Amino acid sequence: MKLDDFLGKRCEWLKGEGPSPNIAISTRVRIARNVAGHLYFNRADSRAREKTLEEIISQAKKSRFFKKSLFIKMKDISALDRQFLVERHLMSREHMRLAEHKGLIVDATEIVSVMLNEEDHIRLQSLQSGFNITEAWRIVDDIDTDLGRSIPFDYSGRFGYLTSCPTNTGTGLRASVMLHLSALVMTGQIENVFDAISKVGLTIRGFYGEGTEALGDFFQISNQVALGHSEMDILDNLERVINKIIQRERATRDELLKRKKQEISDGVSRSYGTLKSARIITSNETIKLLSTVRLGVDLGLLTGVETADVNEILLLTQPAHLQKINGKEILPYERDIKRAEIIKSKLKEKN
Amino acid sequence: MKLDDFLGKRCEWLKGEGPSPNIAISTRVRIARNVAGHLYFNRADSRAREKTLEEIISQAKKSRFFKKSLFIKMKDISALDRQFLVERHLMSREHMRLAEHKGLIVDATEIVSVMLNEEDHIRLQSLQSGFNITEAWRIVDDIDTDLGRSIPFDYSGRFGYLTSCPTNTGTGLRASVMLHLSALVMTGQIENVFDAISKVGLTIRGFYGEGTEALGDFFQISNQVALGHSEMDILDNLERVINKIIQRERATRDELLKRKKQEISDGVSRSYGTLKSARIITSNETIKLLSTVRLGVDLGLLTGVETADVNEILLLTQPAHLQKINGKEILPYERDIKRAEIIKSKLKEKN
Repeated sequence: MKLDDFLGKRCEWLKGEGPSPNIAISTRVRIARNVAGHLYFNRADSRAREKTLEEIISQAKKSRFFKKSLFIKMKDISALDRQFLVERHLMSREHMRLAEHKGLIVDATEIVSVMLNEEDHIRLQSLQSGFNITEAWRIVDDIDTDLGRSIPFDYSGRFGYLTSCPTNTGTGLRASVMLHLSALVMTGQIENVFDAISKVGLTIRGFYGEGTEALGDFFQISNQVALGHSEMDILDNLERVINKIIQRERATRDELLKRKKQEISDGVSRSYGTLKSARIITSNETIKLLSTVRLGVDLGLLTGVETADVNEILLLTQPAHLQKINGKEILPYERDIKRAEIIKSKLKEKN
Repeated sequence: MKLDDFLGKRCEWLKGEGPSPNIAISTRVRIARNVAGHLYFNRADSRAREKTLEEIISQAKKSRFFKKSLFIKMKDISALDRQFLVERHLMSREHMRLAEHKGLIVDATEIVSVMLNEEDHIRLQSLQSGFNITEAWRIVDDIDTDLGRSIPFDYSGRFGYLTSCPTNTGTGLRASVMLHLSALVMTGQIENVFDAISKVGLTIRGFYGEGTEALGDFFQISNQVALGHSEMDILDNLERVINKIIQRERATRDELLKRKKQEISDGVSRSYGTLKSARIITSNETIKLLSTVRLGVDLGLLTGVETADVNEILLLTQPAHLQKINGKEILPYERDIKRAEIIKSKLKEKN
């Protein structure tokens, strides 16, 4: 398989499937591992970095889990392709910046990806559509066990798995759920949610992860520390809290539909109308409008459109996807025009 | 004919016909007259006011110009109907407030209307679609001559026609043109136009005349004084200046189309999309959006819609029209919902 084969596919995190997909967009579980006896990435010189990369790739290729995977060296692909992988949530923004000695393994289903030589030697993740911590963890755990048989992970009896940054040390685990919390934002309850979350060791991030802004009422909630608790404790805590948030968002949406149907309907219909009629549109505006349309689909206020359709447009209108569809790189201003064209044609298919 | 017969008709000032109808919406010429030997309205008591009203009506009914006209006493019609007449530009807001002893004559074509016992005993106006001062004046002048044969107008050899407010004394003439100046607003040239206008004895007003705001780039330009110049001088001056403004607006629109087609097109399409998709919409937002759509029609950026269609929606979505279509009075909030329904159905007919 080739990288471009992904372009025609709906990526895992936007499939609109799994439990509670209208509120929980996707679930991600990742673990950080380093290879014992190898200098950590930031400390290693060029030769050592390359050696680590090669060794992991060679071992991973033998794993039954990566039989149908794409092995990518960052320096072999264009900056546009790197951004494309970030937009599909297959790797971090950090991993895109400096290409040298960095690698990525992506499963054909896009459920599993492994960053090589990011901050740690290995960052293994599993993505699931909807709210599905259990399945995401099961997959990561299985692959971790398998890889651990051929790669000696750096482990301390006292601290657990050792990592480049101490916040990851211990389990090396970070689990996050991307939530769409329109009703909680609309009713001003979101601040309370933020407060509550920070008190139970969780943290909130924006649309593209660490250091990014919240856009269109999309929020990523994840555990803050990896040390001092077992994997199960960390995941159970997250699951419990997210469940409560989903319930509250659900109840608030239903309440809004009862009390303010006309206003919500107006906002949804206007957003949909703007998406269909814009001739120039930025990425941020697109995300905001799609967020409202997504709420409308959930509340049954729009017919002929489904959550997965909204998600697909959300994916395809991101800058790198847009340029790959376009066949060549284009300037931001031209992108805004092309984006409007893509949205128009995608929504025309639906109506 | 009955007042309600007007409801199904396109009123004169929004017909979208006549010279330059895409920039000059309509032309209005009115004269103020008072009946000699009768106390002016503000000075007269109830009996005197009623006597003046009856006398003018009785004379006007004999005129060949009012054979097919509607004679209305304000106290006989509802507040909603009064507002309806204001929205059709057949009388002033002032005339709607206190109904007692006030009358209105409206020609079946809505080209001519006469306010009785407004500020002056007689305020005779002619409306023309587009930029048509000559025709509007010809009609007013003919009727003035005819009425003057049976009604002795208050006239001073030194000042000319005498009026309640000195700004109208002399010719009693006010001519105004409603202009749609989107391109001049968009390019920031409108302030210069305002400055230039005030230097040549003209004045600018908003959408509903004296004391109202400019809405949706619609401006009424009229002469400021009625004294010291002949009717012809006043009208020639206005015609000359308005011609220049129309030319400048035209040139600026064409220039915008050349240089910023994509942006204008985006704005026009979005405005049209919002009008079609809103479920709740205020009168002010409607006027603003229709203003942009109107520009788009002129520039050939929208197909299937014509200036007259835009004008019709502009008329029908005003509060009183809306409520008359609805068959009963409704609260402002319900109006905003009804307005959205009317717009949607009117635009559906077109596409």
